[in-house]
Amino acid sequence: MGDPAGIGPEVAAKAVKRLLPSEKVSFTLIGDRDVLSGVFKDYCPEAVFEDSPRVNFIDPGEPLGGCVSGKPDQNGALKALRSIETAVSIVLARESSRPRAIVTAPVSKENIARVHKGFVGHTEFLQEAFRSDFVTMAFVGEHLRVVPVTRHVALKDVPRCLTKELVFRTVEQVVKERRFISDVPEAGIIVTALNPHAGEGGRMGDEEKTVIEPAIKGLKEKYPSIEGPVPSDVAFHRALARAGSIVVAMYHDQCLGPFKMLDFANGVNLTLGLGVVRTSPDHGTAFDIAGKGVADPNSMIHAIKLAIKALSIEAEEDT
Amino acid sequence: MGDPAGIGPEVAAKAVKRLLPSEKVSFTLIGDRDVLSGVFKDYCPEAVFEDSPRVNFIDPGEPLGGCVSGKPDQNGALKALRSIETAVSIVLARESSRPRAIVTAPVSKENIARVHKGFVGHTEFLQEAFRSDFVTMAFVGEHLRVVPVTRHVALKDVPRCLTKELVFRTVEQVVKERRFISDVPEAGIIVTALNPHAGEGGRMGDEEKTVIEPAIKGLKEKYPSIEGPVPSDVAFHRALARAGSIVVAMYHDQCLGPFKMLDFANGVNLTLGLGVVRTSPDHGTAFDIAGKGVADPNSMIHAIKLAIKALSIEAEEDT
Repeated sequence: MGDPAGIGPEVAAKAVKRLLPSEKVSFTLIGDRDVLSGVFKDYCPEAVFEDSPRVNFIDPGEPLGGCVSGKPDQNGALKALRSIETAVSIVLARESSRPRAIVTAPVSKENIARVHKGFVGHTEFLQEAFRSDFVTMAFVGEHLRVVPVTRHVALKDVPRCLTKELVFRTVEQVVKERRFISDVPEAGIIVTALNPHAGEGGRMGDEEKTVIEPAIKGLKEKYPSIEGPVPSDVAFHRALARAGSIVVAMYHDQCLGPFKMLDFANGVNLTLGLGVVRTSPDHGTAFDIAGKGVADPNSMIHAIKLAIKALSIEAEEDT
Repeated sequence: MGDPAGIGPEVAAKAVKRLLPSEKVSFTLIGDRDVLSGVFKDYCPEAVFEDSPRVNFIDPGEPLGGCVSGKPDQNGALKALRSIETAVSIVLARESSRPRAIVTAPVSKENIARVHKGFVGHTEFLQEAFRSDFVTMAFVGEHLRVVPVTRHVALKDVPRCLTKELVFRTVEQVVKERRFISDVPEAGIIVTALNPHAGEGGRMGDEEKTVIEPAIKGLKEKYPSIEGPVPSDVAFHRALARAGSIVVAMYHDQCLGPFKMLDFANGVNLTLGLGVVRTSPDHGTAFDIAGKGVADPNSMIHAIKLAIKALSIEAEEDT
């Protein structure tokens, strides 16, 4: 559900409406009963009025009552958190043998942090819940697929946070799980440089030589489809020209500037390393347009489709 | 001419060939006689064999003799430098009242630096030659128009180099000269943030509050078409959606990643603040493909056309 006052419930209902006929999976909507039944009545009535064994609702607590779209409050934030926790429990319990994936809707980190100290985002929360020692965040779009090595870090702290181990583990996780990120088999992986022109032989920074090259040297020998460090002003042009390529970038804006320029409306966030499939739409709660019926469900639709694709890859590998 | 062993002479000849019929201007090619007559015989024979009063050649010294495409040497680097110096002298002399613009072809900074200590690039060289106290480098493409505030600086040094004065003077120069950068009158100017999500209220860096906002506050009040600081992952999407927008970015890769992704083959570098029009193609010497006849003249063609456009704007304003 995400934050009940955001556009999460609305895009979820619109997405289920769109995907129910074509996708042979069951949907379990976790969130506030009142909020979800409201948006499903509006945008996907067949799920609440007809006999839809493939759409289930779970409310992890008491109904919120007076939740108002566009007006986030602490009760809503808490319920968003409880919804995520419930999703984790269901996946961990695995009552049936059917594979499961989690698709999260947008929350307000700040609001959840007020009711749950230390909450910095879905990804970190899920990493802890699934006891994963290393996760990577991939952004999958129609035009580009990108992975930032450092994430929510001030620009001045990026060079300090960029360690050989972090670069190595990220690229390793990407190459091992690239089938979830790209439809192209053995898709090329372009690792960016940190500095302009890759430092121009050390004249403009030396992290290419001291960090990135040593980090990926062994991986490049093992996987010839990995290349880098490639300067930013070459990497994205090359990625666009070579269908299916994945860009592993050194910091947030290096890859999300180009990514969101082209894939603003349809980007999907995919978490690698949880041991369970998890995707989410690549947009925020958009409190300003919540409840107006104008929210674009495209990113949520793509998030659900990518989760289904990942499940089917896993199912195939299991057999 | 640029470096005689690079693709500069070839793209210049191909560009003149293409533009001679349509553009009512005179071309003065400055560079080695042998090298230029060689490429013009191949790619624009009418300029050397016919009576072409609109194409002139100037050699700033003795012919090089054994210059080989793809094999740069110090003689070639020195001649490239002399060619730029000659262009400057001609423009400064202004023997006739006709307006003049300089279009430079790519040089190897490293090679010129070996024969002329302290040479770091065309832009800085021209800034000194024209005694300009502040220049700005704009990249003009079909899809995007971008201006980096800091240029060839290691990523770790960007926050230190980013001063209020530098941001202010860059944005001020862009807003005053935007008619040269964009075809759209009063084009929107999007000033980026330095940190992801514009620092998220200081949680991920505070240069938005301490440097960028105070730098542009006064300019925003005077010119409502300036907005910012806008996070990278919004700025380029917005720039693409609003035709003619100009993005003023805080550092090299922030804008050149997105820019070269879409405008790799046709980007033009435009220098603001010299007091004379100067453009150049947005690619390097490409020694690896020089002399093979495969160099794409598109960026040079666009560079010449932008210079002509700028001259005509200046001519109109003079009348």
